[in-house]
This record gives sequence, structure tokens and C-alpha cells, in this order.
Amino acid sequence: IAAGDRARLIERMAPLHESETGDVIEALTADERVALVTLLGDEFDFLALTEVDDSVRIELMESLPNADIARGVADLDSDDAVYILEDLDQDDRDEILSQMPAFERISLKRSLDFPEDSAGRRMQTDFIAIPPFWTVGQTIDYLRTNDDLPDDFYQLYVIDPGYNLLGTIPLDRILRAQRATRVQDIMNTQVRQIEATLDQEEAARIFERYDQIEVAVVDESQRLVGVLTIDDIVDVITEEANEDIHRLGGVGDEDISKTVPGVVRSRATWLLVNLGTATLASLVIGLFDATIEQMVALAVLMPIVASMGGVAGTQTMTVTVRAISQRELDKNNAKRLISRELLVGLTNGAIFAVLLGLITAFRFSNPALGVVIGAAMVVNMIVAGGCGILIPMGLDKLKIDPAVASSTFVMTLTDVVGFFAFLTLAGWWFGLF
Amino acid sequence: IAAGDRARLIERMAPLHESETGDVIEALTADERVALVTLLGDEFDFLALTEVDDSVRIELMESLPNADIARGVADLDSDDAVYILEDLDQDDRDEILSQMPAFERISLKRSLDFPEDSAGRRMQTDFIAIPPFWTVGQTIDYLRTNDDLPDDFYQLYVIDPGYNLLGTIPLDRILRAQRATRVQDIMNTQVRQIEATLDQEEAARIFERYDQIEVAVVDESQRLVGVLTIDDIVDVITEEANEDIHRLGGVGDEDISKTVPGVVRSRATWLLVNLGTATLASLVIGLFDATIEQMVALAVLMPIVASMGGVAGTQTMTVTVRAISQRELDKNNAKRLISRELLVGLTNGAIFAVLLGLITAFRFSNPALGVVIGAAMVVNMIVAGGCGILIPMGLDKLKIDPAVASSTFVMTLTDVVGFFAFLTLAGWWFGLF
Repeated sequence: IAAGDRARLIERMAPLHESETGDVIEALTADERVALVTLLGDEFDFLALTEVDDSVRIELMESLPNADIARGVADLDSDDAVYILEDLDQDDRDEILSQMPAFERISLKRSLDFPEDSAGRRMQTDFIAIPPFWTVGQTIDYLRTNDDLPDDFYQLYVIDPGYNLLGTIPLDRILRAQRATRVQDIMNTQVRQIEATLDQEEAARIFERYDQIEVAVVDESQRLVGVLTIDDIVDVITEEANEDIHRLGGVGDEDISKTVPGVVRSRATWLLVNLGTATLASLVIGLFDATIEQMVALAVLMPIVASMGGVAGTQTMTVTVRAISQRELDKNNAKRLISRELLVGLTNGAIFAVLLGLITAFRFSNPALGVVIGAAMVVNMIVAGGCGILIPMGLDKLKIDPAVASSTFVMTLTDVVGFFAFLTLAGWWFGLF
Repeated sequence: IAAGDRARLIERMAPLHESETGDVIEALTADERVALVTLLGDEFDFLALTEVDDSVRIELMESLPNADIARGVADLDSDDAVYILEDLDQDDRDEILSQMPAFERISLKRSLDFPEDSAGRRMQTDFIAIPPFWTVGQTIDYLRTNDDLPDDFYQLYVIDPGYNLLGTIPLDRILRAQRATRVQDIMNTQVRQIEATLDQEEAARIFERYDQIEVAVVDESQRLVGVLTIDDIVDVITEEANEDIHRLGGVGDEDISKTVPGVVRSRATWLLVNLGTATLASLVIGLFDATIEQMVALAVLMPIVASMGGVAGTQTMTVTVRAISQRELDKNNAKRLISRELLVGLTNGAIFAVLLGLITAFRFSNPALGVVIGAAMVVNMIVAGGCGILIPMGLDKLKIDPAVASSTFVMTLTDVVGFFAFLTLAGWWFGLF
């Protein structure tokens, strides 16, 4: 690149798959990226931009002339073009769109008008629609002679004049049928279709549940407007899993290309919330400062009770949050699961109460202290099990994503209950109030 | 079911998709499940068993006569049959296989001989292979006249007489080509193929990266033995994401159908480990009991420092673990990311040190205590950032899944360092040793 040797660069980049080109782009500095794209010119496949981290793509797009972007994006499938354009600001987007051919512009505009993360944004607007009275032979001839077909397709859509979907035909069925067969006699009439405004996560669930490769997308008046293909859905599934994991870990939208200021900002929110809740737990301990003064062993032991509750609560919460996001937890099994978690809390509480009780009794040569910490442990583990399932379920009812907020609530509650139960029981048993 | 009214049951169940039948099975009790399958007899679609939780399936399979299972499984695609059979014990499996038709038996045996969670286990052994010298017309005629084709297929495989893969042809390309074209002239020759012994997670990554719908699976001598289709891969991706999330949350292989004893067992391991590490942290506090006795405020405040470190460490660890499992973290960016995390730790440490320091100084009317807790906070946040990235990377190097073990190590270290830094600094500043 540095040498500006265009011919050699093209030769080296041409055989790469777009995801490999994406890797190359990510490995470069910001300036080199712009140089690479400019140098390759028409030879640069904008598809590679769908394979890089969001922040890299946005930065690169802002440095490129809008005219180049318009030309590059016009060559892409509509779903990939939307993916690249949707993160730009309104002004840039409009300018790029205005420089594109009319047909592409209209179909992209329509996709971009659907809400973010909806099926309409992810769909491909190129698809093959045929009337029901065609024969298999006519269909094959149409496919053979028409040059303006989508790049890849796996099924055909049978529609009426009003663009309402009548049925679908997988390609293998066309290939197996005799030429004289009418398509309406071999089409699937039990068709699954998705509203364009449906959230992409819900759309992904339909693909997973019904093992689909391609699903029709319809607008509010049930007219066929596009198709969703499974390769886009695979990305959605991975993205959503990433999101769940990041949210459970208390980090927002973050990818590894983000720089320090961005990361600091994305993580500060939860640290601030945690500062608040930790201070709350500390206030609870503060209520017992006279008790602790009389028996320092309590200060030494209290974090164990809190920490065991935290782990148990996190375990229950993790399973619950995932079950909610996979739509596995519903009214039918909620009661059973709540009592299961309470019972698990009681059982593990009892097991570890005995263990910790014994350790403590020996360590401080104080059997009574062992009994007290054991009892506090049982209480905290049951609370942990209860909170671990009830908090995510409650947040879900309030339409708050349980992955985002559950962790803090659960940890705070198990800390507060752990400290409070242990210090109260000890103060009462040893008469330290 | 209770009434044993077979005709009505068949009528009600027949229109259901297999995943809906699966839901029905899950909602029933164990006895009702057996009754349902027995009553439906030949009308029961064993495919529904691929849609229920593992524990439900295994229990149900053990209650059904092996002869019925053999008959039901013989009708399935090979990948679904393997999925159902692989969790049974060797004896039952052999008995079922021995009661199946020879052709199915051999292909299932071959799949089952591949290691668990490998591409060979997930592949479909039915596929369409054609010689390179056939024309498109010959191929279409072959597809039209042959009744024994797989249920769904998306591409054809072009092979030589030794079953080596020469190329692939997506069905749409067959449909677009003229009848006289030779398949060797339109096939993809840059073919991605997967070794049957490859882990399913690696296979999934190839699908994601290269947006494939179907990929050829070859044995060790490069002979084509099956194909992997994306609908199986979607399940693998979801499964692996579940596994990552559960492991990060400290729960093993768990699904919501598990009963109390199973759950207690699967969670006890990490609770036990945590008991050990929490005791370690408590021993560290124990070193300072004389210091705490002189200044109880330290006991009240120390959990805040530890908890902030825990949150910061978990944040870094979450991002790192996910980046490792997505193969996004490699030698090229490791150094940059480590220094990024240390800097983020320093920055957030400084911000929250000031905040917590001010709160503390006012709460205890003791500015010096504010300075001490602030300093301890900065130290712990930097340690948290460092551990959060280095521990998962280290575990990955040692070939230990970082999702499983990172959390405990990170939490222990941030607890220990949090308590130690705060108590040491305070003891030294206030001369309490």
C-alpha cells in the first residue's frame, strides 16, 4: 500500500474471500484503510465492510467520499447495503442514496424505513416471484433466460397479481418435477411468513424452530416485500448471544476495536450503579459497628457468607436469564422452576452451612460461631435462589431486558442479606447489641 | 390420551410441526409421554424427539421398546437419527441398530464412530453426487426420475470415481444453465470441505465466516462421506452460546427440565471452589484483625473496594472470554488490548476513587480515610483490568476453557487485592500496625 502499487495490491487481494479482506482491513491503521480502499477503487468489494467491527466500518465510511460509497454499495445485495448504510447519520445516508440508481435507491429506502433491528432491515429485496399457473418448464425457461436474477436463491415465491404470497417452492422440488407440472400443484401452501416490522431476534427464533433456509417477509398489507435468508440469521443469532453475554457481564455494546475513552464510558454506568449498591451494603454493615468492635471475627467471616450467596444467586440468575431469552420459561413451568430453585438453595445452603460451620468452629475454636455462620448461610442461599429467579422474571414482566439489570440486583440483595443475617444472628446469639 | 382415543389423537397431532409436537411432549408427565408415543404408533414422528430437552428424550427413550425406536429412527435423516441415538448407552444403541435395515445401519454406525461433537456426528449421509462429465440436462433427468433422493438439498456434489470432491453446484446454477452445459463447466471448484473429525464449533465458524448453506464433509482419505447443512449448524451455534453463558455463570450442563438433585450436583462444584477462595480472602482479612479492632470503619468500608474490583474484573473478563471464543483475540491485537484494559482500569479507577473518596471523607468526617480508600480503589481497578484479560488468555493457552474457570480466579484476586490494599494502606497511614 505504502508504495501505491495498485496492480500488485489487486493481485494479492483478489483471491481473498470477503471475510478475509475484512480481517486485512481490521489489521491496518485508520489511514492505511482509507488508502487501501482508494487504491483498489472499483476492485474493492464493499461486501468486506459487512465483516468488520462496527466502529471500524463507521470510521472508514466517514473518511471515504460519498460518491465512492454510493458506487460500491449499489453493487451489493440489498441486505448487505442496508447493513452498511444503517449506522451512518441521516445526512450522509441521504446523500449516498441520492447518488445511486433509482431502482436500488427505492428498495434500499424502503428497507431503511423499517425500524432498526427489524426483519425489514435484514431482508433481501431481490427474490424470484412467479404466478401459480406457470408450469415447471416455463419456470426453468424463465430462469435460464433472465439475466437479472439474485446471486443466490433457494426457493421461488408464488404470488397473485396483488403480490400476496400463495406458496413457496424449494428449488429441489422444481428439479424433481416434470416440465408439464403446474407450480401451484407442487408448491408449499403452508407458508411461514414474517412481518417486516418483526424484531430480528423473533425472526431468528422462527428460523431455529422451523429449520427454515429462507422465509418470506411481508408488509402490513400482507404484500411480499423481501426474503430473509439464513446466513443473515446466523449473524443475528451470534450477535444476540454476544449481547446477552455482554449484558450479563455488565458491559454495554462493546467490541474489541473500541478505544479507551469509549470503553471507559460503556463500563462506567454499571460501576456507578455498583458503587451505589455497595455503599448500601456498607451502610448495613455500619449498623453493626458496635457488634463488630466487640468481635472482630465477624468482620473476618462476613464476606464469605455474602460471596457464597453471590455465586449461588448468579448461577440461578444465569440459567433464568438464558431461559427467558430462549423463550423456554413460561407460565406452565414458572411455578415448578421457582420451587426448584428455592429447594436447590435450601439443599446447597444446608450442605455448605455444615462445611463452613465446621471450618469456622475449628478456625476460631468457637462452635457457637460455626452454628451462627451456618444458619446465616442457609438463609442467604435460599434468598439467593429466590432472587436469582424472581428478579429476572420480574424485570421481564416490566419489559426490561433481564440480562442488563438482574446481576446488580441479585448481587446487592445477596450481599445485604448475607451481611445482615450473619451480623444479626451473631449479635443476638452472643448478646452483643 | 387418558381415554386412549387413538383416532382423535392422530387427528389433533397430525397438523403440528415437529417442534410443536416436542413442546407437547415436554408439557406431559413421563408416563403420559410413553402413552402418547405408544398410542400414536407409526404415526409418531421421531423427529419431534430432536426438539425436546436432552433429559426428557433420554428418559423417554429408555421407556420405549427398542424395536419401536429402531423403526421410528430408520425413517429419519441420518443426522437426526444420530442426534437421537448418540446419548443412549452402547448396549441399547447396538440393539436398536441391529434391528434397522442394513443400509441405514451402516451409515449410522459410521457417523457414530466419529468423536462426540464432531462434524461427522452432525452430518447428513444422504447427498447427491454426480460425475463431472454429465450435462445439466442429464442431471435434471436423473433428479426427475430418481425416487430415492434426500428430503431437502441445496447443492449437488461433483465427484471422481474415488469419491473425491471435484466441485459443488448450487441448485440455482443448474436451473439457470442450458441443458447441454457440462456440470464441470459450471461447478464451483474452490470448494470448502470439512474433515469429519473437526469439532462442530469449528465447523460452525466456517459456516458463519463464509456464509455457507451446505458444506461437504470428508473422511481422513479425503473421500466425501456426508454434508453438513446450516440448520444443524444453527442449533450448534445456539448450543455453544448457551454453554458459554452457563459456564460464565458458574453452572454446568443444565437445562430447565433438570430436577433438584441434578441441579444441586451441577452447581455444587463451583460453590465448593468459591468456598475455598472466599476462605482465602477471609484469611487475608484475618491478618488485619488488630487493625480492624482499632478502626471498625475499615470493616464497614472494605467490601466496597472488593466489590468495585469484582465488577470491573468481570467486565473485562466477559469481553475477553467472548472475544476468545469468537476467535477475535489473537497475537496481533493481544498487546493492544492488554494495555487498553490496564488504561481503562486506571481511568475508571481514578474516577471512582475521587467519588468514593469524597463520599467516605464526608460520611466518616475523615479526609485521610477518603484518600486511603481512593488509593486502594485505583490499585484494585488496575489489577482487575489486568486479571480480567490475562487470566482468560492464560487459561486459553493452557487449553482450559476460559469461560469455565476465569470468573472464580478473577473474583478471588479482586477480593484479595481489594481487602489487602485497603487494609495495608489504612494500617500504614494511621499507624495501626
